[in-house]
Amino acid sequence: MAQAYWQSGTTAPATFSLFFRSYPPDRSYFVFAGLADVLEYLERFRFTGGDIEGLRSLGKFDGEFLNYLAKLRFTGSVRAMREGSLFFVNEPVIEVTAPVIEAQIVETFLLNQVNVQSVLATKASRVVYAARGRSVVDFAARRTHGTEAADRFARASYMVGFSGTSNVLAGAIYGIPTFGTMAHSFITCFESEAESFRAYASSFPDSSTFLVDSYDTIHGTRNAIEVAREMRQRGHRLQAIRLDSGDLLSLSRKARVLLDGAGLDDVQLFASGGLDEFELDALLRAGAPIDGFGVGTKVGVSADAPWTDCAYKLVEYAGQPVLKLSSGKMTLAGSKQVYRCRDETGDYLRDVIACAGEKAPQEDGEPLLHEVMRNGKRLGPQPTLQELREHFAQGFAHLPECHKSLRSPAPYRVEVSAGLERLQKQATQKVREKELGE
Amino acid sequence: MAQAYWQSGTTAPATFSLFFRSYPPDRSYFVFAGLADVLEYLERFRFTGGDIEGLRSLGKFDGEFLNYLAKLRFTGSVRAMREGSLFFVNEPVIEVTAPVIEAQIVETFLLNQVNVQSVLATKASRVVYAARGRSVVDFAARRTHGTEAADRFARASYMVGFSGTSNVLAGAIYGIPTFGTMAHSFITCFESEAESFRAYASSFPDSSTFLVDSYDTIHGTRNAIEVAREMRQRGHRLQAIRLDSGDLLSLSRKARVLLDGAGLDDVQLFASGGLDEFELDALLRAGAPIDGFGVGTKVGVSADAPWTDCAYKLVEYAGQPVLKLSSGKMTLAGSKQVYRCRDETGDYLRDVIACAGEKAPQEDGEPLLHEVMRNGKRLGPQPTLQELREHFAQGFAHLPECHKSLRSPAPYRVEVSAGLERLQKQATQKVREKELGE
Repeated sequence: MAQAYWQSGTTAPATFSLFFRSYPPDRSYFVFAGLADVLEYLERFRFTGGDIEGLRSLGKFDGEFLNYLAKLRFTGSVRAMREGSLFFVNEPVIEVTAPVIEAQIVETFLLNQVNVQSVLATKASRVVYAARGRSVVDFAARRTHGTEAADRFARASYMVGFSGTSNVLAGAIYGIPTFGTMAHSFITCFESEAESFRAYASSFPDSSTFLVDSYDTIHGTRNAIEVAREMRQRGHRLQAIRLDSGDLLSLSRKARVLLDGAGLDDVQLFASGGLDEFELDALLRAGAPIDGFGVGTKVGVSADAPWTDCAYKLVEYAGQPVLKLSSGKMTLAGSKQVYRCRDETGDYLRDVIACAGEKAPQEDGEPLLHEVMRNGKRLGPQPTLQELREHFAQGFAHLPECHKSLRSPAPYRVEVSAGLERLQKQATQKVREKELGE
Repeated sequence: MAQAYWQSGTTAPATFSLFFRSYPPDRSYFVFAGLADVLEYLERFRFTGGDIEGLRSLGKFDGEFLNYLAKLRFTGSVRAMREGSLFFVNEPVIEVTAPVIEAQIVETFLLNQVNVQSVLATKASRVVYAARGRSVVDFAARRTHGTEAADRFARASYMVGFSGTSNVLAGAIYGIPTFGTMAHSFITCFESEAESFRAYASSFPDSSTFLVDSYDTIHGTRNAIEVAREMRQRGHRLQAIRLDSGDLLSLSRKARVLLDGAGLDDVQLFASGGLDEFELDALLRAGAPIDGFGVGTKVGVSADAPWTDCAYKLVEYAGQPVLKLSSGKMTLAGSKQVYRCRDETGDYLRDVIACAGEKAPQEDGEPLLHEVMRNGKRLGPQPTLQELREHFAQGFAHLPECHKSLRSPAPYRVEVSAGLERLQKQATQKVREKELGE
């Protein structure tokens, strides 16, 4: 495509909007994530000598075009929402303006990163919501689609309120608290379960969590109690026991009774094993005395909604609004702004998608797209993950509850401004006349 | 865990089995993928100085243990099935034998890679099956969970029979044929759809595929016909048109009639747009005249089955078989072999999971696990992707049709040998007596 643009002299500035066309089942909002990687990619964008030789070897590309590619850098500007913002269907979260080849050639990376990171952040936010203030830890690294996804999930999930991650590398990269745990294999290496607990406690006298279900959860809890008492005699404390299989509601109740009966009411109950927001919700509604959760498998791939209909579409070329009309896939023409309107308590009322230059639909409508890159350079420092976490928490607190339901949440109101509606009508009319002769 | 192993002197050789516990919906087989990355990881495994300093800064680890980690290498052996092999539940696809810390510390990477690559290879194999010999191209890079997953999907899908990928990087890394296409944005940049087709044809006079649904698929097909005739007058040929939205069955029929009526019966019909094996199957059953498919979104994340219950479990420690009894998650003890038994035509009849030393259950039972690494070094060159592709094709041809159905396929027979059953009973009994006092 780039070669055809270049050879035909189609190189004017273009604006692309990145947006999500529809919600997956049981979703009425998305959490925006992925911007940090996008901006870093755009700043570093280039073809290496090896890349160019690889392309040349395909025999499909013109030598002069390859010389052009070798010098290509991203020189455009980017307007975007802040990571950790809530957003809704059809709202651009990123708008890229650059000479069309630059803006086009980065499409796959931008879609890939914003899609996966927003999908995972959204899923994780649902788990935090279901956990009702209890701690949730990322155990997903063994099941995410690759190690890159594991690291991105650790970051996205911490952004939306997880307590930390078992992914030590992601902890180091992003400064996320790391949590260790023992596997069944650790336990089955020892002469007995109790011996394995003793060994672990000896290494981590004040930060041990014992996994109690290797043979039988209740027997394991009794072994944990025995070792926890020995620890107490030495002035230490068992932090928690972990249940990882079976009926977690009934087992957590029984284990709590046993621990409390042994005077170990300060030992927490931690649960894991294929949990997602639906199971957390069911357990906590039923009153399971669980203090924290480790989630992996279903959450780290957003199992009920692993993809979105996320699009990166040309909306303006050479100063003219453009759009496509493909069945069921229409785009909103022109560069845009998204305004968020709140009620007097700060709660979200509605969003309005407007033309970029259009004024806010109500005085206090907050514009969500801000310029973050100009001439290919970032305009400010990357916000810290802690700042994004706070930004998410503040926003989420103001999203009315009805939009957060885990099943069939109410849709949030997203309107198109009068100005954008006019522009859309004109652009559609023009295309229909020109292309379809209507 | 590694520190507790080390400090307690729990450092004997251990064997871990990597296997899949159950099938996701509508699956009766898996395609094994990920071994190449696993072996490369094991050969290169080490903590860098920076890694060690990062761990030290957490304040959780003993200095001597960190010195030990700094020198840690993988010195063990690996037995594995060949990539591209079909495998079934409970069958180990990889067995790792090494001092327990080495074998344990690589768990997350091994599970991560084998899970995602096998999940994606399996999904892609279903699409190839549904396509009934028609060409399928990987368009998934914008939707996979990260760029690493995009490259792995390109490789896995080519291994199981895709024609190629639109992912140019994966094409270069793995030597996979690459296929270009135009986006709607390319078309909407031009004064008219026909002009955009002309520009593309001028750059790629013999390898153009025109996307015809930007405004209206039938109008777009007429524009493509106009430009295809101009191309023919210049001695070139339009390769294909691509339909990307709407009712693909009815549109493909209409487009075929138009093309044939214009004497362009050599122009192929290519379809894309959220397709998966179920939609391909429905289209082709209904007789849609489509010659090739581009698949992305739902296939690149294995949308109906994005995760598996894949496990890496300790089965032998210090020469003794071990297992856990966790509810619903039992493991088969001891180092194992998997034998595949075929009928006289070579078709798969049943598999038998046996002890590693046990002889084949029938004379011609083929052992599937072979040593591929010893003392931390690979034993032979990595098979080429082309070889793996042929290996898959041969295997898949011999899997009876009933196990390939896209919906509710018949389960394949997997048995446990008499020897393994005995060992399992003994190990279970021993654990029950020791741990549960039974």
